[in-house]
Amino acid sequence: MRKIFQEDLQNVGDLLVEISQYVTTAMTDARQAFETADVQLAEEVIAADRRIDAMQTDIDERAIDLLALQGPVATDLRTVVGALRMSASLERMGDLARHIAQLVRLRYPDQVTPEPLRATFQKMAQHAIDISERLTELLRTRDIALVAQITALNEQINELHASVFAALADHDWAANAATTADCTLASRYFERFGDHGVSVAAKVHYLVTGEWDSRGSEGEARSAISPVE
Amino acid sequence: MRKIFQEDLQNVGDLLVEISQYVTTAMTDARQAFETADVQLAEEVIAADRRIDAMQTDIDERAIDLLALQGPVATDLRTVVGALRMSASLERMGDLARHIAQLVRLRYPDQVTPEPLRATFQKMAQHAIDISERLTELLRTRDIALVAQITALNEQINELHASVFAALADHDWAANAATTADCTLASRYFERFGDHGVSVAAKVHYLVTGEWDSRGSEGEARSAISPVE
Repeated sequence: MRKIFQEDLQNVGDLLVEISQYVTTAMTDARQAFETADVQLAEEVIAADRRIDAMQTDIDERAIDLLALQGPVATDLRTVVGALRMSASLERMGDLARHIAQLVRLRYPDQVTPEPLRATFQKMAQHAIDISERLTELLRTRDIALVAQITALNEQINELHASVFAALADHDWAANAATTADCTLASRYFERFGDHGVSVAAKVHYLVTGEWDSRGSEGEARSAISPVE
Repeated sequence: MRKIFQEDLQNVGDLLVEISQYVTTAMTDARQAFETADVQLAEEVIAADRRIDAMQTDIDERAIDLLALQGPVATDLRTVVGALRMSASLERMGDLARHIAQLVRLRYPDQVTPEPLRATFQKMAQHAIDISERLTELLRTRDIALVAQITALNEQINELHASVFAALADHDWAANAATTADCTLASRYFERFGDHGVSVAAKVHYLVTGEWDSRGSEGEARSAISPVE
């Protein structure tokens, strides 16, 4: 019974690694589509999100089966409940990559962002991909040194997010209102993607150490981020 | 054992009703602050969000204790796992009310939205409050007739959300970029608040009937909403 439980738990863990890999692919492709106004790639990201949604359902069903059939307690129980929460965050990260792709589709053949902000968005997108890659590695290896890296990358996204709002408020900002709205949303999507990455990383940290990482734990709840503060 | 379990489960259910009431208060106050540029009330909403966060932690700890000590299966297990998910959505709804209040604080003494969009935002806010009130009633009574009402209110919010973007893209739109960004975010917050309300309602529907409500279940995942489509 115990051995079966550990195998099932390992399977759930493997699926979390896998969904995180799909999220990385989604954000990598969304970034590529975003920077090159590649509507075909954007459509692929949008279509592929269904697979991420299905994976979340699969992980959750397996986790609930584990609870029903094995009745885990203590650390094992926290691990299963943690998997339910992490799958929700990872699914949401997939949605946010999809939202980026949907902006690309909406504005095609134009680019979503105007030239003055493109370098900023390139950095945000790269940090988002870096977070996603490190998250996969963290889920695979449980090397909690990666948690601090993920938190630091998210702080850089938050700074870039603030700089987008500073640019919009500047007298030099010349884009029209629709573009302003697009930039606002795109920046928000990257920022939320990073928050969810930190939230998953904090949960792994907790499961490994039994302690919350006070820098990044609970994502937005503890860091009290307002998107425009 | 069985009797204690049902009492504990009822306690978790009562706490979900209570957190939903706090969310309603948060959104009601955030709306009032938003419409009148009342920075003091906005500060109260921001401060009160800590209580909602603490309630979520409390609900989750009780739910995990239930899993550990009682090892529920079948419908009872789904109810406990459902409580974990609903508490996460309700906590997030509290965050979104706080974000509205943070916009009020940021722009004080100005109003966040310009005159031409105020009627639209008043309707969005009212629908958000209506969703929250019906959600409390749904959690209390399990009267699943409320699910359709919540879904319909959310559809109205989605239409108003789309109309905000249409207004921004109109030639008559004369507000500056910072105001455009604020309107974009505020509209997005109301829209997400409604999505989370539908998501909680769909979970109650599932727990009561064993079937997903195909109109509104899984929130964004199944309705495939893009914020600007």
